[in-house]
Amino acid sequence: MGQAKEKKCVVRFEPSGLKTKVFIGITLLEAAHKSGIYLSSICGGDGYCGKCKVIINEGQFQSRPTTLLTPEEVRENIVLACQTKVLSDMTITVPKWHSLEAGKILTDGDAERFRNLGGETEITDFELDPLVQKFYLEMTPPSIDDHTADHERLYLAIREKIDAPMIQTGFRVLQKLSPLLQSSDYKVTVTVGRRGGTTEVVDVEGGHHCKRSFAVAVDLGTTTVVAHLINLTDAATIDTEATYNSQMNFGEDYIRRIIYAEENNAFDELQNRIVHDVNDLIMTLAVRQKIDFQDITACICAGNTAMVHFLLNLDPTRIRKEPYIASAGFVPPIRAAEAGIQINKRGLLFCLPGVAAYVGSDIVAGVLATRIYTKEGISLFADIGTNGEVVLGNKDWLICASSSAGPAFEGSGVKHGMRAGAGAIEKLAILADGSIELKTVGNKHPTGICGSGLLDTLAELYINGIIDRTGRFIIDNNSRLTQGDEGLQFQLAPAKNEHQEIVITQADIDNLIRSKAGVFAAIRVLMDATQIKPEDLDAVYLAGGFGNFLNTKQAIVVGMLPDVPLEKIHFVGNTSIEGAKTVLLSRKALETSERIAQSMTYFDLMSHPTYMEEFIRAKFLPHTDLSLFPTTGSVDGI
Amino acid sequence: MGQAKEKKCVVRFEPSGLKTKVFIGITLLEAAHKSGIYLSSICGGDGYCGKCKVIINEGQFQSRPTTLLTPEEVRENIVLACQTKVLSDMTITVPKWHSLEAGKILTDGDAERFRNLGGETEITDFELDPLVQKFYLEMTPPSIDDHTADHERLYLAIREKIDAPMIQTGFRVLQKLSPLLQSSDYKVTVTVGRRGGTTEVVDVEGGHHCKRSFAVAVDLGTTTVVAHLINLTDAATIDTEATYNSQMNFGEDYIRRIIYAEENNAFDELQNRIVHDVNDLIMTLAVRQKIDFQDITACICAGNTAMVHFLLNLDPTRIRKEPYIASAGFVPPIRAAEAGIQINKRGLLFCLPGVAAYVGSDIVAGVLATRIYTKEGISLFADIGTNGEVVLGNKDWLICASSSAGPAFEGSGVKHGMRAGAGAIEKLAILADGSIELKTVGNKHPTGICGSGLLDTLAELYINGIIDRTGRFIIDNNSRLTQGDEGLQFQLAPAKNEHQEIVITQADIDNLIRSKAGVFAAIRVLMDATQIKPEDLDAVYLAGGFGNFLNTKQAIVVGMLPDVPLEKIHFVGNTSIEGAKTVLLSRKALETSERIAQSMTYFDLMSHPTYMEEFIRAKFLPHTDLSLFPTTGSVDGI
Repeated sequence: MGQAKEKKCVVRFEPSGLKTKVFIGITLLEAAHKSGIYLSSICGGDGYCGKCKVIINEGQFQSRPTTLLTPEEVRENIVLACQTKVLSDMTITVPKWHSLEAGKILTDGDAERFRNLGGETEITDFELDPLVQKFYLEMTPPSIDDHTADHERLYLAIREKIDAPMIQTGFRVLQKLSPLLQSSDYKVTVTVGRRGGTTEVVDVEGGHHCKRSFAVAVDLGTTTVVAHLINLTDAATIDTEATYNSQMNFGEDYIRRIIYAEENNAFDELQNRIVHDVNDLIMTLAVRQKIDFQDITACICAGNTAMVHFLLNLDPTRIRKEPYIASAGFVPPIRAAEAGIQINKRGLLFCLPGVAAYVGSDIVAGVLATRIYTKEGISLFADIGTNGEVVLGNKDWLICASSSAGPAFEGSGVKHGMRAGAGAIEKLAILADGSIELKTVGNKHPTGICGSGLLDTLAELYINGIIDRTGRFIIDNNSRLTQGDEGLQFQLAPAKNEHQEIVITQADIDNLIRSKAGVFAAIRVLMDATQIKPEDLDAVYLAGGFGNFLNTKQAIVVGMLPDVPLEKIHFVGNTSIEGAKTVLLSRKALETSERIAQSMTYFDLMSHPTYMEEFIRAKFLPHTDLSLFPTTGSVDGI
Repeated sequence: MGQAKEKKCVVRFEPSGLKTKVFIGITLLEAAHKSGIYLSSICGGDGYCGKCKVIINEGQFQSRPTTLLTPEEVRENIVLACQTKVLSDMTITVPKWHSLEAGKILTDGDAERFRNLGGETEITDFELDPLVQKFYLEMTPPSIDDHTADHERLYLAIREKIDAPMIQTGFRVLQKLSPLLQSSDYKVTVTVGRRGGTTEVVDVEGGHHCKRSFAVAVDLGTTTVVAHLINLTDAATIDTEATYNSQMNFGEDYIRRIIYAEENNAFDELQNRIVHDVNDLIMTLAVRQKIDFQDITACICAGNTAMVHFLLNLDPTRIRKEPYIASAGFVPPIRAAEAGIQINKRGLLFCLPGVAAYVGSDIVAGVLATRIYTKEGISLFADIGTNGEVVLGNKDWLICASSSAGPAFEGSGVKHGMRAGAGAIEKLAILADGSIELKTVGNKHPTGICGSGLLDTLAELYINGIIDRTGRFIIDNNSRLTQGDEGLQFQLAPAKNEHQEIVITQADIDNLIRSKAGVFAAIRVLMDATQIKPEDLDAVYLAGGFGNFLNTKQAIVVGMLPDVPLEKIHFVGNTSIEGAKTVLLSRKALETSERIAQSMTYFDLMSHPTYMEEFIRAKFLPHTDLSLFPTTGSVDGI
């Protein structure tokens, strides 16, 4: 402590053995970032989420006091990495639960499951007319009777193939055009891209290469990044891949990441992370399918507004500050290389349009993919992930909002919450005899509980009278209900061998109720504004990873979704990537997505007069107003 | 000669003192190029123009035999630089007549005169609507009631100012937009450029900077490069500058330069030269007018097809090879920096459209500037420079051709031919007593003869019966007619002190007649194809440097121009730059220039069935068919 801050020491992380040299006084969380090691951290280093626990094996350190560690943990030399400063060379063990290593392509867990989710939608009603296309052109070479210059000759040939009133050619293509036309006897493959109303000659190659025409569609999720490799000639999805978003080192939700970037001037680093993730996915797909990067001529992205801003290094800071605006909702097509995306060096990067700071292009993609903008009947679309975005409408109108209730169902802010990786409790029922039946991902010993398991738990605790309508534990002689470090807790699975006991705490339940209340309040605000009643809803579409695994009945039981017949609820999978693919494959779909984004009315819940009231009313199970839940309204009714 | 070619030696050039290290065996012309010294060279090093004479002071060399040096010159150690190989360290004197040093901005001579030429046209009928413009925008900052993203907010504000259905923003501008809008309280100056049908946001600056909006218009002449600095806010020409085209080291006409580039793979070097010239002009203008480069946001160029190809490093080789085509006639706008033009780093470079390999954008600019495409009456437009391009037509049709007769009136291929620099004979008359009255540029002692002087000489020799209708000297007892090294020659000025005698030789006269015959034959082909007679012509427009100083009566006397009343002949000056400025200042004019280029019918004289016949008929003075020249047809008639 008397040492100068400038002195450096070495921190070694086990079991990876990675080492990093750091200045004395920096935190273990920073040291972990520096060495590329992933530590869970929801709060981004503020010391209140308690996720970044590590074990100190050796070395001197200084830790701030915290209530987030049990006396047992303190005895075991467990510290919060973000609250612990390095004072000497150290050796640290990173516990297994920080299972994500930056940049590693996951092939198990929810990333894997998520990438393969199909939806019920069929993308067949847009004509195949990709944003980037290849054409084989056989031109008549110039002659004494036909002096047309090469550049204009090419344009004439392109216009024989496609409708392209305005064509633009980049300088580098222009320069190589004439030598190429001559050496290839005026038989070339041209790659054209649609940029606004202009058709750009992206590239020209000698000979016939039309069949080597690929693109990548990307869903930029806050937690998971998914990429699909598309064959542009037949619209087929060739392969898919997913990875965790390696920005998670900087906070599990994007607001935390924006704060981290502002405080540490780390905008470039955040961009590098997500660009690196996308490039990793593209590389994996290209290598696996033996496709040359040069033949991938387009990348299309959908994601929430913050993720798109991170990808392009656009200023995201006002997303989290009043008046909550984006730098750009409609991002023009750019050359992918400008953003660091590694495809054909002249290939284009498209981003679907977004609506507002909290309703991004992933939601526009969802509206497009579900076709709710074409339907007579009224649909409700909900994407319940890190945030909870909802859209209500039909072919005549669309309104949308985003709930800011927090990502409890993603496992954040929940003591044993985890992603849907191996060992996560994904289904749970409390049987009549009080015993618990549960199913884990991969049928492993339970190591935590993921979103669908948490929803089941909340519903089952309520149905079985273990919590009351406010979510409080009802103290009776239930042996599973015990006093833990953080108050009352309910045991879901006992400790066994090296595995810890899995419990749900009062604080966890409060967080889950806040989350479900946020989603429901957002839905209520939209329905109330348009005088739509649950029985008026033709369909409820659930998108996203959580939306695909939840038990819809339980979601109505706890009052997260409106009380509609279960057959009206449809799982639609990853509509963000489905919508992105639809746009990639059809210029008309791009125009449609722009019309959707432009016409959708955004309700800013943070300044909405009745949202807070609706939120408080929704903090009961299922709701303060039981008449909203006629089928499941009282526990007895189930 | 026994030395290895790899050995290097030093060549020193006097009087500049510049030195260069070269391999043994390379020519003095190459050594001069390497050290940046300009040597006249019309043939580009082929050894037949005889212009690249230098004096050897010291060192060993090997010269090929040539008939282009007089025995006197050989005695004085004069050699042709292109035919002389370096064998040891050498010292060379570069005679004064190679007065042009590469890259030096000329402030005298014809470059200076040319830059200030006004025309008779008035560019007032296009609305001011520059291709690049600045606007000051005061936007309402976003608020809780107005969530429009910054990027879309900017577009809305731009659309309040101008008609811009499609707007495109480059990635770098997009990235800086939001921080800039915030720091400038949403009061910004935006620079927009028109690229095809798209309006590009070229740049955004905080605050009000609309008045700092400049552009440069450039005439890319084969011999002279001229630049005008334009204030885009009021269309005023602030300043002008000119320089010789420093590509002249590689040949005085562009065909020679293309051959040089092919043989030496020197396309990059040719581009560098012209780009360097343009940048020098821009720098001179900007520094003199105290204008920041960042405030020059556009550059517009007109020039013959080869010069535009050189500037952009587009493949020019097929301009000189059957079927004689350009790589691009319509060059799309590009970022000026991509071509190396040093203005605002996001500024745009526009090139006017050309018609064919031998009718470039300078001619389209001329048609635009003279407005002949708007007129009922039929006009003839001629630009007699290194080439001789002619256009015939009116508001309903336009046809054009280019004569390949060679640049004798530019002084090339003429023993004492020179540019219109100080000492050049620019006017000449043979008086009744046989004495000669002449006027030189700058009233200096005559050192050579330039285009207008050559035309006068040809006409006066003919009128005074010194040459016959075929151009042959009529041998009588005229004391000025003597036998020189190259046959008969006529003395125009005697030797005096250090100044040499100025003569015109039989070969010179043959060259001049070939040149005038080429121009007239081109005119005849066009007039014949459209059944237009001289009396049908409403106006003859003469553009270019030579066109502005020639004696029109003499031009008819020798049969270069058709026999029309002199009042119908108009000097229109540098219409290439006038047309370029017109386009720069008006989007409508750009569209018009594109229509002109597209609709003009090009006559390829090289494959035309009657051109050669017309050419041979025109090789008489004034013509084989005297009925074509009723007023000047016979010498007696004058």
